[in-house]
Parts: sequence; structure tokens; C-alpha cells
Amino acid sequence: MANAMLLPVLISFLVLPFSALALTQDFCVADLSCSDTPAGYPCKTGVGAGDFYYHGLAAAGNTSNLIKAAVTPAFVGQFPGVNGLGISAARLDIAVGGVVPLHTHPAASELLFVTEGTILAGFISSSSNTVYTKTLYKGDIMVFPQGLLHYQYNGGGSAAVALVAFSGPNPGLQITDYALFANNLPSAVVEKVTFLDDAQVKKLKSVLGGSD
Amino acid sequence: MANAMLLPVLISFLVLPFSALALTQDFCVADLSCSDTPAGYPCKTGVGAGDFYYHGLAAAGNTSNLIKAAVTPAFVGQFPGVNGLGISAARLDIAVGGVVPLHTHPAASELLFVTEGTILAGFISSSSNTVYTKTLYKGDIMVFPQGLLHYQYNGGGSAAVALVAFSGPNPGLQITDYALFANNLPSAVVEKVTFLDDAQVKKLKSVLGGSD
Amino acid sequence: MANAMLLPVLISFLVLPFSALALTQDFCVADLSCSDTPAGYPCKTGVGAGDFYYHGLAAAGNTSNLIKAAVTPAFVGQFPGVNGLGISAARLDIAVGGVVPLHTHPAASELLFVTEGTILAGFISSSSNTVYTKTLYKGDIMVFPQGLLHYQYNGGGSAAVALVAFSGPNPGLQITDYALFANNLPSAVVEKVTFLDDAQVKKLKSVLGGSD
Amino acid sequence: MANAMLLPVLISFLVLPFSALALTQDFCVADLSCSDTPAGYPCKTGVGAGDFYYHGLAAAGNTSNLIKAAVTPAFVGQFPGVNGLGISAARLDIAVGGVVPLHTHPAASELLFVTEGTILAGFISSSSNTVYTKTLYKGDIMVFPQGLLHYQYNGGGSAAVALVAFSGPNPGLQITDYALFANNLPSAVVEKVTFLDDAQVKKLKSVLGGSD
Amino acid sequence: MANAMLLPVLISFLVLPFSALALTQDFCVADLSCSDTPAGYPCKTGVGAGDFYYHGLAAAGNTSNLIKAAVTPAFVGQFPGVNGLGISAARLDIAVGGVVPLHTHPAASELLFVTEGTILAGFISSSSNTVYTKTLYKGDIMVFPQGLLHYQYNGGGSAAVALVAFSGPNPGLQITDYALFANNLPSAVVEKVTFLDDAQVKKLKSVLGGSD
Amino acid sequence: MANAMLLPVLISFLVLPFSALALTQDFCVADLSCSDTPAGYPCKTGVGAGDFYYHGLAAAGNTSNLIKAAVTPAFVGQFPGVNGLGISAARLDIAVGGVVPLHTHPAASELLFVTEGTILAGFISSSSNTVYTKTLYKGDIMVFPQGLLHYQYNGGGSAAVALVAFSGPNPGLQITDYALFANNLPSAVVEKVTFLDDAQVKKLKSVLGGSD
Repeated sequence: MANAMLLPVLISFLVLPFSALALTQDFCVADLSCSDTPAGYPCKTGVGAGDFYYHGLAAAGNTSNLIKAAVTPAFVGQFPGVNGLGISAARLDIAVGGVVPLHTHPAASELLFVTEGTILAGFISSSSNTVYTKTLYKGDIMVFPQGLLHYQYNGGGSAAVALVAFSGPNPGLQITDYALFANNLPSAVVEKVTFLDDAQVKKLKSVLGGSD
Repeated sequence: MANAMLLPVLISFLVLPFSALALTQDFCVADLSCSDTPAGYPCKTGVGAGDFYYHGLAAAGNTSNLIKAAVTPAFVGQFPGVNGLGISAARLDIAVGGVVPLHTHPAASELLFVTEGTILAGFISSSSNTVYTKTLYKGDIMVFPQGLLHYQYNGGGSAAVALVAFSGPNPGLQITDYALFANNLPSAVVEKVTFLDDAQVKKLKSVLGGSD
Repeated sequence: MANAMLLPVLISFLVLPFSALALTQDFCVADLSCSDTPAGYPCKTGVGAGDFYYHGLAAAGNTSNLIKAAVTPAFVGQFPGVNGLGISAARLDIAVGGVVPLHTHPAASELLFVTEGTILAGFISSSSNTVYTKTLYKGDIMVFPQGLLHYQYNGGGSAAVALVAFSGPNPGLQITDYALFANNLPSAVVEKVTFLDDAQVKKLKSVLGGSD
Repeated sequence: MANAMLLPVLISFLVLPFSALALTQDFCVADLSCSDTPAGYPCKTGVGAGDFYYHGLAAAGNTSNLIKAAVTPAFVGQFPGVNGLGISAARLDIAVGGVVPLHTHPAASELLFVTEGTILAGFISSSSNTVYTKTLYKGDIMVFPQGLLHYQYNGGGSAAVALVAFSGPNPGLQITDYALFANNLPSAVVEKVTFLDDAQVKKLKSVLGGSD
Repeated sequence: MANAMLLPVLISFLVLPFSALALTQDFCVADLSCSDTPAGYPCKTGVGAGDFYYHGLAAAGNTSNLIKAAVTPAFVGQFPGVNGLGISAARLDIAVGGVVPLHTHPAASELLFVTEGTILAGFISSSSNTVYTKTLYKGDIMVFPQGLLHYQYNGGGSAAVALVAFSGPNPGLQITDYALFANNLPSAVVEKVTFLDDAQVKKLKSVLGGSD
Repeated sequence: MANAMLLPVLISFLVLPFSALALTQDFCVADLSCSDTPAGYPCKTGVGAGDFYYHGLAAAGNTSNLIKAAVTPAFVGQFPGVNGLGISAARLDIAVGGVVPLHTHPAASELLFVTEGTILAGFISSSSNTVYTKTLYKGDIMVFPQGLLHYQYNGGGSAAVALVAFSGPNPGLQITDYALFANNLPSAVVEKVTFLDDAQVKKLKSVLGGSD
């Protein structure tokens, strides 16, 4: 049939009309060996399927610590495939009695999805200092707007696990206690800008390793 | 102690210096009764904790259909709290043998997190038509760059479930088969722009309810 | 002269070629009576020069309070002309011994310009909790990246004044102490997510008006 | 055949899994009867194919004026379908000896495509005041970066026509001569801020209809 | 005259007040020898007028192929001057009977301007699979929203030509047929995710050069 | 007390849960030795507090020139800490009788804050060529929308000083007179695109150093 005979010829012609389309940026897997830029890392070459895949959230984080919780990030630093794509993730493991302390993500909003157990979560608005809290069960989701203080803790009798997604590849994580007590910010300054008592500041600095 | 006596007085004074800060936009929960804008819906008033919470992904979608799969969205239309926050979510249920057909999200990148079972997923780049595929097990994540064709199907012997997060509150979903065969696009046009045979087009139009 | 005679004719013709150009958006002064959107307020009509001008930062804020400081905002809520323009301002008055407590701006970076006195300022990075501090004199500027905890206090023997500019029309202001102690967040939750002692939390809740 | 019999059943099932996807924003045709926002107009309802189509650039603009040129815009005000899509267009007709005077587009870069004749075009950089000029023939394109002063004039012996595309739906057009001489900006101020001579200013104000 | 005598002195003084303004980024012509970033290529040095000019769309593309059409791109890869400017272009040549097959641009909206002949064009929305089609004559424009499937074909008795502008410097081009049939995506997978028959898939894979 | 004894142990455990968080981008101080990108300069390493501080605006600019004014920039080129943060600044010194000539900032809106003296400022809209002017006294602020022509001059009997903030790290500065008269743009072209008289153009070209 004439049609059948024409077909083998089609390929060489059909490819031609668009053959000049190189350098298209469908994605930009981070080359972490380069300097970052305000829009993310330069793109690596030689990309494969593995660059868009990450196994690091499959295993539970180690919650054998005093906060009985672990945050396992899949940010651009761990998962270079999200570079430039406006999204990243993390896994939250919170043992019974565990807590993810008060913190913000300066560079992204957060969406939390409970996969196991019960999580009590809340965030605080900036203008009115209004508290928004929910008890979240398996399958529930909650969203935390960018830059606002929030926390999560286990509210049940078994381990809780959540997948957390962020609206950017590098959301950042600023834990209030670490910012105040785990560095060389002088106790006198901490007290001045927080109205906390000297004894309280020194106690937590001692606990978190900050110098006085 | 003088200090203790001063403290009750502090509140009335401390609040004053910042009392003029109203109208701050920490978030903008969608008022779906208003017209959308290019940046999202106008903000509703009277926001509560429930606006940042969504229960609709907790239950499995009904996969008793021929594709044996269900996509349950938590986009701005279902979950108004994500309006303006650059993120949304969906739940994917894929029964044994089920498939989420070839599709794109015109307005967001996607991050998939497997919570149960095994999912075979792939996407295709635009320039070189390169195929990137992975077999994903529980706890694995994969990212699909914005606007590129991709698919997921169950690759195991039990039901698969995934949480999907998007880099925007309204990602859109364009299923290639629906775009071609589930509307009034004439068969002759479909054939002209896809090189599909007439019988194939008419068969799928019949299946998917498109007019000839 | 022929040239001179032609000139009066020019206007009627020259105007014509571009007369269809209406609806151009050079600016979008906020109509604060409308609902906000994720990109800012709808534009008001009947704009005049006064909409781009604000007098409210000319007078010193009242620092006769226990923190001996005042923040006078010129955000979109006070100065509707900045709507959509990616910038806003505030005036900082800090009396001797005064302090602007630890806080973040969730939605903007800040640039501080000292116009009088001496200000000690610092911010804390998220990843390494590194503290960046400077003593600022008249004419000095310092920039505070979006979303990071920072503070300012008077470091001299006279009143300090600063103009503060923000990289957005509605930067927000979340004062850590207010978020923790000036609302109905239960003391037990505050203690759980901050590791502060019960007595400390209750003392500051009492001072700042939070319920227990 | 069993397969054939199954197919008619497919449609009712296949549609179900995604039926909850309403409110998706593929586009946002401007409702020009509403107030604009910083991100564009609210979306109209009842959209049809005609909303994405514009006939107004098909006819030549009237160049029977002293500048012997006409700019016919297809901005959001004329072509509401481009709202929110980051693009718009205009038609340029320049008769022999005609000129599009020095101007900027405050809100978009411009890409010019010559469809007839010869156009001499140039733009001037801000830092070094470097002039970039080209003679453009049919089929040539030139790009003018956002906000920079540029001009076009007919450089041949026949009428020139160009299609101009912009990187935004509402690029704006600020013609330097109009800004200086076609309004009530006092001559003394014009002279002060431009170093132009009084006679020159008054002559052009008279021509362009500005009050003294 | 005193005025005339003062003028030659002006230059040395006038230049001084702003002489520190270097490093201003009016534009950022792509240095294609560097790695791309999520925001575009690093800027080249030594820019000239030729960097903002492109001649490659002046000549008709070769339509002596089976689809009887050619797309000639002026994306950042061909026209480095558009880097960072939010715009790019292409030329469309469609011979009588020719067609630009069903495709998307993942990273830009498209504005089509017909310069010769008649083009039938259409796009399909994502939510409702609504088809929007128009017959376009010389001078008509049509806009295709980002990421949505669309097509163009010659609807007249003579060659059709169009200039196409995009709302980004690197729009991408994903032709559905190429994504499905011109690579190593196994036929079984194509069939699973498209519901196409095996014979149809193998026929088009053979035509387009895909491996089985 | 058991509590006290546990505390020293806390640090080693508490640090662990989040220890994998490297590569977070709180800021991106410009490495000016690298090529710029469309989103700003690559980030330097080894950042210190000094990178977020700039002293260069503390001293008055030299106004001993014919315009009796000086603009001292703190753009990314002078103050690398603002890279990627969406803000920058400048100092304006205007002696009695001094003027900042008509200009635009192609890449930012401007917010002016008067710290000394009286400044007359105005800008001109693009569509209607409407003039918006204000007399600004110490403490007043005015905002100038991106890309629009504006000017400032001293309106009082003493030196005027202002801090200027911009909504971007690299706003650009295009002074109309410089663009027209301080380069090699031929007088004939200037006259053609501005309608200025030949004598006027040549006079100002001579003053500002442009070649004829």
C-alpha cells in the first residue's frame, strides 16, 4: 500500500522541521559543585532518571534524642533535581512525646500530610498573633504560610510520621531556640531582645551549646 | 520587687508601639465566591484554623473504574487555604493494574511520595524526547518538571497510594486522551494533528464520549 | 516661516497615532475598601499626587513605653500608593536604652538607614545559627534578609532614629515575644515547643497579656 | 469482541476519577469592567474562542499625520485574552520619512519583527549611555530591553510595517516628548530638569498642546 | 554670553555626580558557553548591537517534508539577546496541506501573528477539555495559554507564514507524537498510558523512529 | 535534680535531628568577580557581618558641580549584600538650586525619604502624561513607580538630603539628557526622534560631551 511505503520515509523528514531546538530548559538539576545564585544552582550536565528520584525519605529518622523527633530533608542540597522547580520535601518522624520545636521556614510555605499517628500542629499569625491549631490524623493535611512561626508535636500514643512539602527548593529552617541559644549571641543581648530572665537564658544556652 | 511590680504595667505600653500594624497579609484564604485573578482568588474574611486544614485526602479514592485509579485533588478549589501560598496537593490511589494516563500540569511541578505499594512513573523531556522512568517503592519520591508529559501506574501486586504535592495552588491537569477524545474536536482534526488512524480516533472518541 | 506655520498643526496629528492607549497600569494605588488578593489590593480610581506621598513618618513615634521604642509603619495599609510596587517603609524611634525586640518580617527583606544616634543591630542565619551584628552610626545602612530573626537597640547616649525600607508593600512583623506570650497559646504548649520553664512562660504571658 | 463491548462502558467510569477538578485556571481573560489588580484584571466568565483572537492589527494604522507613523496596540485593554499570560502585541506602521519618537515601555521588553520595508531602530543603555542601533529589513527581529529609551524610523523608500510583541500584557508607552511637552508640567520645571532652552520648550509645548 | 561660556565646563562636572554607577544590568545577553541557571544563562561581556538582532527568521523554513511545515526558533539558544528578557520568537512556515502537530510549550504562552495565508489553529483547556479554535487570516493574532495542547495547520490554498512570540526566552516545545513515538518508551507503556491500540503505536513508532 | 542533670546531655541529641540541613540559602551576597545572571550575581563564600553593612552613604556627595547635586548609590555593585534581596539604596544630596535631572530607573520603583531640607519632586504617567508633583519636607516620603520619568530638585534655602530606597538590587539609572547628548547618537537621529531643534541638540551635545 502506498501509505505503508511512505511511512519509513516520514522519519527523516519529520524530524527536520524542529531539529534546531537545542538548549531547551525543561529542568535544571543542581550542580552543587558550583556557587548558588539567587534563583538556584547552575544546571548540571549528564542528567538521568536518578536525578529526579530520592530514596532518602523512605527510612524513619532516628528519634532517639531528647526531642524524640527527626526532620529528614529532601531540599536541593540533598535532592538536586528540585532545583528551579519551586518545590521540595522532608520527612517528619515524631516519637510518642516528641516535638518539632517552634520554627519558621524563611523561604517557603509548608504543606504537611500525616501518614501515621496523630500530630498536633499550630502556627501564629504576625499581625494579630492569632493562633491556628489543629489535631491532625492519618490522611489529614495542613498548610503553614511562609515565614510564620509554627510547631508540631505528637498528640497520640504511637509514633507519628508526616511528609512535608515546601513551595520552594530551599525553604530554610530557623528554630527559634537554636537561633537564641545555640550560638555566640551574648546572654545580655538575648535577654534584652526577648525579655527572658538571665537564669532562663543561661540554662538553655548551656543545654544547646551556646557560649555565654 | 520593683521588677515584679513593673511587669503588669508593661502590657499596656508594649502593645502600643506596633498597634498601627493592621492589614498585614500573612495569608490569603481564597474567597471562591469572587472572580479569580491571575495571582489567585481575593482573600476571604473571618479566617479560622479550619481554613488551613483539609480532610479530603484521608479516604481512598474510588478505583472501581476501568483505569482502576483515582486522583483526589486538594487544589485551591477544594482547599482554599493554599491560595497564594505556591503549593497544593492531591492523593493518588492506583489499584492493581491501574494507571494514571499520560498528562501534564500546565501550571506547576509535581512531587510524588509513595505511601503504599509500588508505582512505575515516567516523564518525557521536550527537547530530546528523552524518557525518565523509575520504579518507586514506599517512601520514595520523584519530581516531575512543570508542563512535561508524565504518567504513573501500579507496578506491584497490591494497591498503591501516593501523596502528590504541586508547586502552585492551581496546577491544572490536562490528560492527553481527554483533550483529544472527550470533546467535540472533529476526528479529522485529531487525525491531522496526531497522525493517528481514523479508526483509532473514532474508537477512543466513542469510548471517552467525544463527538465525531 | 514655513516651519513655524506647520507646528500648530502638529498637535492634532501627533496625538492621534497613540490615542488608543488606555488602561495602562503605571501604578495601582490600593483601594483598601476591597478585598486583598495574593498580589495586593485592587487599584483605586481617581488617583492624585497625594496618593504617592506620605507624611506619617515625619513625626517621632512615642517612645514613652517600657521598650522605649516605636515602629511607625508606612506599609500598604497606611500608604496605599506602594501597592504593587514592591516597596514600603517604616520609621524607627529608639530612646536611650530602648529596644526593638527579636522579630521577623515574613514577606520582605529590610534595609535600615540610621538618621540619628547609634543602633546595635543583628540577625541570625537559619542553617548555622550564625549571628551577624553591627554597630550602626548616622548614615550607615544594614540589610536584613527576608524571614530571618533580627533585632535593633539603642547603643548610644541619645535617641536613635532610622528609616527602614522593605522589599515589599506588606512585609509583616512577627515579634517572637508577642507570638508566644500575647495570645491564648496555652503555657503548656509554649513550654513544649520552646523548652522555656513554666515560671518564665507564665511571667511573660502575664506581662504581655496572654491567657494561660 | 470482548474488548469492543467493554469500551462503551469506559466513559462513565473514566470520567469519574478526575471529576472533582473544577476551578482550574488555564487562563484568565480580563473582565475590564472590574478594577485592575497588581497582577492584572479579574477573570471574566463565559469565555469563548473569540476571547483569544484579535483582528485589530490586520489593518494598517493611519499614517497621515506629521510623524507619518501609527502604533496600533493589542494590549490587555484591547485584547483581554492576554491578561495574566505575560505577553501582548502591537502593529507599527511607518510611512516613508515616518518615525516612532523616543520612548520607553516601563513594564515590558519588546521584540520587533519587520514584515515590510526597512526600519532603523536603536536603544540606549542606562549605565554607559551606549547606543545600540541596527538597520532592519523584512524578516529581521530586534529586542529592546525593558524600560530603556528606544526609537524606530523608516529607513527606506517604501512604507514599513512591523509586528511588535511585549513581555507583558500591559507594557505601557511613555513617549519622552509627550511626557515633557503635552501636559501642564511648567516650562520652568521642564527647563530645570532637562537643560533645554526656554524657547525650545515653549515651541514644543505649543506644538504638543502642553500648557506653559 | 555667560551662558555659552559656562556650557563647555558643564560636562566635567555633570558626569561626576553619577560616575559610580557601574555594573548596572540593563540586559543580560546569554553566554551560552556557561551552564544555564533556573533564571537563564550568565551574562556575556563585550555586548554589541548585533547581540540584540537576529536574521534567522527572515528566510522561509524548508517545508519539503511530510508535515509540510517548518518551525524556525529564535529562542535563547539561537538568539542570546533575549536571555532574561521574558520574550522570544519563532517563524512558522506551513505549506498547503501542512500541519504543526499537537504540542505544548511547557514554559511560555504563545502569541501567533499571521503574515501570509490562512491558518486554522486551536487549543484545548485542561479542566473541561474545551476546544477553542479560530480560522486566522493575514494580520490576525491568537494567543495560546502556557502549557496547553494546541496545533496549527494551513487552511488555505497558498503557503501560510506566521510570526510566533513567546512569553519567555526558552519556551520549550513538546510535540505529543514525538514524546510518545520518537524515543525508547516501550510500546506496552505507551499503550497503557494512552489506551492506543498496539498496532497504532507500533505503526507510529516505526514512522517516527522510536524503538519498540 | 533529674531535670538539671539531663540538660547537659540535651545538646548532643538535639543537634542531631536537623544536622543534615546544609546549603540553605538565607542570603546570597554577590561575588562580583563572577558573571551576573538574570537573577543576580552568584553567591560569594565566607560571608561576614560586614557584607550586610555599608558605610558609603554616611558622607555627603560632592555637589560642587553645575547641577549642584550628587547621587551616591548603594546598589549591588557597591553593596553586594543586597544581591537577591529585592532592595537597594542611594543617597541624594542637592545643594541650593541643585537638581537631579529627568530620569528613569528601568528595573525598580523608588521610595524617597527626605532627611534634610526641602525637595520638589514629580513623576509623569505613561498613558495620560499626567504630572504628579509634591513639595517634600523633612520626614516626608514619596514613591515613584518603576520605569516612569521623574525628577527632584531643591526647593528651599538650604541643602537637601534624601535617602532613596529601590525595589531591586540593581535599579539602573537612565538620565534622559545623558541618553540623548552624552554619546555618539548622531544629532540628526536625536532631532528626528525628539523634534528638538538642531541648535539645541548640538548645544547640549557639546555640553555633555556627545559626538555630533
